[in-house]
Amino acid sequence: MLLKDVLILDSSMDAAQACDLIVSGTTVDSILPPRSADMPEEIDGKGSIAVLPGFVNAHGHAAMTLLRGLGEEAPLMEWLQKRIWPVEARLRPEHVFWGTQLALLEMLSGGITCFADMYFFMDQAAEAARLAGIRCALSRGLVGSDEKKLEEGVDLVRRYHDPSGLIRVQLGPHAIYTVPPEAFSEISKTAKDLGVGIQTHWLETEWESGFIRHELKKDPVSLLAEVGLFDVPFAVLAHGVWFPEDRIHELAGSRMSVVHNPKSNLKLGSGIAPVPRFLEEGVRVALGTDGAASNNRLDIWDEMRTCSLIHKGSHRDPCTVRASEVLRMATVEGARALGFTDVGLIRPGWQADLVLVDLDRPHYVGLTAENLCTALVYSGSSADVAGTLVAGKWLYRDGDHKTLETGTILRKARDCRKELLED
Amino acid sequence: MLLKDVLILDSSMDAAQACDLIVSGTTVDSILPPRSADMPEEIDGKGSIAVLPGFVNAHGHAAMTLLRGLGEEAPLMEWLQKRIWPVEARLRPEHVFWGTQLALLEMLSGGITCFADMYFFMDQAAEAARLAGIRCALSRGLVGSDEKKLEEGVDLVRRYHDPSGLIRVQLGPHAIYTVPPEAFSEISKTAKDLGVGIQTHWLETEWESGFIRHELKKDPVSLLAEVGLFDVPFAVLAHGVWFPEDRIHELAGSRMSVVHNPKSNLKLGSGIAPVPRFLEEGVRVALGTDGAASNNRLDIWDEMRTCSLIHKGSHRDPCTVRASEVLRMATVEGARALGFTDVGLIRPGWQADLVLVDLDRPHYVGLTAENLCTALVYSGSSADVAGTLVAGKWLYRDGDHKTLETGTILRKARDCRKELLED
Repeated sequence: MLLKDVLILDSSMDAAQACDLIVSGTTVDSILPPRSADMPEEIDGKGSIAVLPGFVNAHGHAAMTLLRGLGEEAPLMEWLQKRIWPVEARLRPEHVFWGTQLALLEMLSGGITCFADMYFFMDQAAEAARLAGIRCALSRGLVGSDEKKLEEGVDLVRRYHDPSGLIRVQLGPHAIYTVPPEAFSEISKTAKDLGVGIQTHWLETEWESGFIRHELKKDPVSLLAEVGLFDVPFAVLAHGVWFPEDRIHELAGSRMSVVHNPKSNLKLGSGIAPVPRFLEEGVRVALGTDGAASNNRLDIWDEMRTCSLIHKGSHRDPCTVRASEVLRMATVEGARALGFTDVGLIRPGWQADLVLVDLDRPHYVGLTAENLCTALVYSGSSADVAGTLVAGKWLYRDGDHKTLETGTILRKARDCRKELLED
Repeated sequence: MLLKDVLILDSSMDAAQACDLIVSGTTVDSILPPRSADMPEEIDGKGSIAVLPGFVNAHGHAAMTLLRGLGEEAPLMEWLQKRIWPVEARLRPEHVFWGTQLALLEMLSGGITCFADMYFFMDQAAEAARLAGIRCALSRGLVGSDEKKLEEGVDLVRRYHDPSGLIRVQLGPHAIYTVPPEAFSEISKTAKDLGVGIQTHWLETEWESGFIRHELKKDPVSLLAEVGLFDVPFAVLAHGVWFPEDRIHELAGSRMSVVHNPKSNLKLGSGIAPVPRFLEEGVRVALGTDGAASNNRLDIWDEMRTCSLIHKGSHRDPCTVRASEVLRMATVEGARALGFTDVGLIRPGWQADLVLVDLDRPHYVGLTAENLCTALVYSGSSADVAGTLVAGKWLYRDGDHKTLETGTILRKARDCRKELLED
């Protein structure tokens, strides 16, 4: 398949070039000079379509689309205890199936080609992802020291983890305030034995930082080692808002990635993660939307822009957290965080997870190969996405989903929502 | 014209109701129970279209669309001195004409029905607005103590100010660091005599606060009175980032509005304005995008969401700066800031400046009349705009501009950009 005369970014994300991009099967075959490939084109970009590596939503709870908008503008614990948890307690497998598909409609239309998910009834999430044809990293959220739940997480690995396919599975200890340290260590040991990664929440709120220090009587960085997170193949630490700044260097060089969820952290009043410091110290940082109940958009463009802006504003430095850095967070760093080694860059032999962006729009006037990166982050939006491919296959094109049935999903999701909220 | 079975918000913006909305000529005629009006409909919303008062972009420099993306991620003074000012020095009237139209394509497609503009060659900006049929508040940016420039500003009032039409004109002293206090007072006095308002920048940066205190040896709040801003019919203070918190109450009850430009303030590293305190004290706050060179989107949805999120995050309070407050800032408070008294709410007899929002989208599943307001601010985006009317006239509908020629404007704007940047 030939994508003719399109703009692509180099791996630094700083500079772009026009090229002919050839996709063969599930991977990128070659990158040739523009209008030099001798084969019929699938798309002729005429220099006004950018092709980006697909976006990776590296932390979220997909089926929470069904809980979107519940308990808006409430204090965090009231929001959780009065609005979210009672409804989650009523969730059944089919809710997760349709809620996840609802999330995928939104994610694919915005160019997300890979998503992380930590929730329950994960077989249904996996089936939804398989139907859609999207890449994903799934984990069964684990709470408490319940061996049975860990067994469910391990089962999910056995049934769905496919290192050569689209679906990978990780273990998902929810957080250190919901999983006791000994049980957490056991999960890490199991992940190491299975050769899979970990997804967890870490230092999202100041309360959590206090809990670790005063209830567990631990130091939140030393605790990472104690629960085995330096020993697993890789791990996602979602949030990291309250990571102590003088200890950030200890994460550098590890196989842990912090997943920054800027909008969720702002909306819940959790705070602003020390992202400029993470970047300075060489800590891996990816981007996530978190669940739709605390965001409320599953839109990586929004996260990229918010990330690039809030750190500039709060540090009063227009030069910090550059567009090229957030584009890497949203693509190759996300893939790496979730254990994908041939995803997140446009390179021969790498997976053809691609987003097509229509640049023939008013807000892109003045765009050149030199400023494509900043134009996308500061001026672009998910509405500019003209197509999304995963492993060489069109999943979304010109406003239409190719694998998901929009009308059915909207109807079923509305029914689920009603069931969840009715008395 | 009947907009049948649509959802509208009440003036608090908190609660919505289904209704039939009848527009007659340039104004809203009546609001009837849904499906009760006995006339052919222009639109049948079937309960899944919201009609909002048109958004007001209460501070900006429209033709700066031609400068978008210049000098990204540079320190403020380097950005201004090396990238922006040299290009602005080359601007000619036709550039402002096409650059303003380029801005209007973007603003109208996102539901902006009224914009404030402070720039130069304002006759061309006025002609562009007249062509488009959009409502606006224009001011010629005044710098220094040049009587000739003030005369240009006054001329603009004489030629274009039309209190019964779409275009109003205000005087635009650029800022207290570019207009000496005596000249500023003279401008205020002229505005008062003419019965028009003022647009100015006030306390955008910490540097400006220091300039007022140390160079002018003034207090930045007392100076407002000294330059006559309490005496004019109304005034826009753009930014207000560095407004001293213990003096905020002095603005309450005045005819001054602070126009908050959250994304521009973040991107330039200026800081975060004390919006929760402005609201607590009853100061009027509106929203603006600022110019496209420092944002880079002319998108009020983006400003609403950023405004609602950054104050929650930086104050660590999920309950502050509510969705209903930002919706008011983006509509009726913006209109008020610019001197329009029958714009910004959907009320019989008020101007029919309206935005139609398509709610039949994945991110709106679960929407009810009770949560429309939060759904719009936290989940919606400019891509949901299905139509924009100003004074009862369709200017944008289902992706098409009705008054502006998109293809011509894009071509002309690209030519202008080339001219401005060539050696």
